[in-house]
Amino acid sequence: MSSPEYHGRRARAWAEVLERDPAASAFLVTGLANVRYLCGFTGSSGVLLLSDADPLLGTDGRYLVQAGQQCPGLDLVLDRQTLAAVVARWKSRTGGSPQGRLALESAHLSVADYVALADAVGGVERLSPLMGVVEGLRAAKDEGEMTLIRTACAISDAALSRVVPSIRAGQTERDIARLLESTMLALGADGISFSTIVGAGPNSAIPHHEPTHRPLAEGDLVVIDFGAEVGGYHADETRTFVVGSPADWQVELHALVLSAQEQARHAATAGTDLVDVDRCARGLIADAGHAERFDHGLGHGVGLEIHEAPFLGPHALGMLAGDSAVTVEPGVYLPGRGGVRIEDTVAISDGPSVPITATDRGLTVLG
Amino acid sequence: MSSPEYHGRRARAWAEVLERDPAASAFLVTGLANVRYLCGFTGSSGVLLLSDADPLLGTDGRYLVQAGQQCPGLDLVLDRQTLAAVVARWKSRTGGSPQGRLALESAHLSVADYVALADAVGGVERLSPLMGVVEGLRAAKDEGEMTLIRTACAISDAALSRVVPSIRAGQTERDIARLLESTMLALGADGISFSTIVGAGPNSAIPHHEPTHRPLAEGDLVVIDFGAEVGGYHADETRTFVVGSPADWQVELHALVLSAQEQARHAATAGTDLVDVDRCARGLIADAGHAERFDHGLGHGVGLEIHEAPFLGPHALGMLAGDSAVTVEPGVYLPGRGGVRIEDTVAISDGPSVPITATDRGLTVLG
Repeated sequence: MSSPEYHGRRARAWAEVLERDPAASAFLVTGLANVRYLCGFTGSSGVLLLSDADPLLGTDGRYLVQAGQQCPGLDLVLDRQTLAAVVARWKSRTGGSPQGRLALESAHLSVADYVALADAVGGVERLSPLMGVVEGLRAAKDEGEMTLIRTACAISDAALSRVVPSIRAGQTERDIARLLESTMLALGADGISFSTIVGAGPNSAIPHHEPTHRPLAEGDLVVIDFGAEVGGYHADETRTFVVGSPADWQVELHALVLSAQEQARHAATAGTDLVDVDRCARGLIADAGHAERFDHGLGHGVGLEIHEAPFLGPHALGMLAGDSAVTVEPGVYLPGRGGVRIEDTVAISDGPSVPITATDRGLTVLG
Repeated sequence: MSSPEYHGRRARAWAEVLERDPAASAFLVTGLANVRYLCGFTGSSGVLLLSDADPLLGTDGRYLVQAGQQCPGLDLVLDRQTLAAVVARWKSRTGGSPQGRLALESAHLSVADYVALADAVGGVERLSPLMGVVEGLRAAKDEGEMTLIRTACAISDAALSRVVPSIRAGQTERDIARLLESTMLALGADGISFSTIVGAGPNSAIPHHEPTHRPLAEGDLVVIDFGAEVGGYHADETRTFVVGSPADWQVELHALVLSAQEQARHAATAGTDLVDVDRCARGLIADAGHAERFDHGLGHGVGLEIHEAPFLGPHALGMLAGDSAVTVEPGVYLPGRGGVRIEDTVAISDGPSVPITATDRGLTVLG
């Protein structure tokens, strides 16, 4: 990402802050993904202060060289007490007594830091808690971001296609998760998007199952949920398999979820209400009598975070943004028996969404 | 971990809350590592409420089965709006209007959630923000915890000893990081403690360097900082190597850091002030003229989090607890030239600390 692009993002964020609070004189960005989005810094400790003047990046001494390389030209504040040091520098810049309010990210600041900040600026009335300023900007991806997401999705697909033919009854969930992760890294991923989920048999009915030493057995449904990370951007994909010949209930369950997923992908278009996309899949699953067995949201935005705005669910507010990337991932989970989830990362534009992850969605037989 | 052990931890945490705020009628635990410590739940979304009555565990529907398995007997609240649902259940338990204050973890609750919570309980004066209640308990490890840390450290040592003989000039930082990580997993780690740092040549002077495609070259110092995770518990270890024959300045720098590390390990004993342990290493490095080149803390606690209380540094408050596990990791970084860091995870008791990571600390020649 070039420096002018970060500059533009910071200008848009600052304009949005002033739109929400015209009395704001600075904006303290404490969400790490938001800091990265606005200046490219990837350290584990970072705070960015935006105002009409030059931005300030605060971090600690471990990141001296890295911050200089990733954010050339940015004023740095290096201090273990980063938040306090950034605010002190800001105050000294403004002659010790800044006017206006200090806007902050209320979803990314702890109560403890909030109290310290209030002390530092002279009371809570000098603070202006805001939510979702940068997240809102991040929902629509630019071309560079979409390229990274597409690359991450392509690596995910390629890794799955290499691993699936080697899966046999007797291998453990954990073996498969590890092999898939090392294959993504070997294919050029910078990291894995999240700890891979491989759930077999009854474990496939646990949406966020941690892979165990349980070996795959004949008749198991196997849910594999995984993704590669490239340049900070994530892929998210789930496919459901079966070991040996599927039983009728497995075929039916898979067909139901696939059809719910297809309908929701078709409905997911720029400007559609989030709840409507969710309802599209949820309604079909409810009609089949499984309303209680689809107990999570339909999907979420994907970008610098694996889960980011927007969140698609029965109580979601807002609509899908154009040029955004979200997951569509309905699932039905029958406790003790097994579950099916089918998930793609899709690109949102004017027509029906276009899946970026592209592995065949059919009920593939393993072994 | 057995259920009685979690019960004991919860009783100690609740007693500590009442000690700090006798008017507290419940304690909302929102730090995920703290939730895990108190009930064993490992999901990515979880809230625990402690009071004189039975505890409540809140999470969302994705974790229905997992929460039941990991926390048998615990009352569950399953809701996507977890925090609000847990508080609602607590209020309904107490007939709708609980007495006293709701204690919370101010370091693990966002300003946004705090505001919502204040609304739910009838004003901020009904909230009691506390810090470090559970972290304080977590500093001293029980035998089960120490066994997991020892296992994680043993796997880390074994992986390094397998990988080091194969390292050659021409391999990239990233190749080595990946090989070390896959070796830890192959040796039985449940995960890696953090993204492995391999910094070669000038990159060795970046304390938290992300491995690149830079190939190792003759004359490079190579810092490798890594660790395995077992059962949720972490190992943390750093060794510094050299490619080919070391230059005199490299030998001297390494000897300086090693001697600082040895002195600090010797000084690290139960009841010693944290600043004194830090000063022990920092003084030696300052005497050698490198005060500005050791720009991070001396170490940190290790347990369910890779970085947890206590934090050893020049401004640290408090003392080392008996039966705790901390890192001792001084480093000196010469920008553009190279750096040296030597780190062990050590066990704290009455005598000098005992290193748990055990790989030879000498300046090992690679290739």
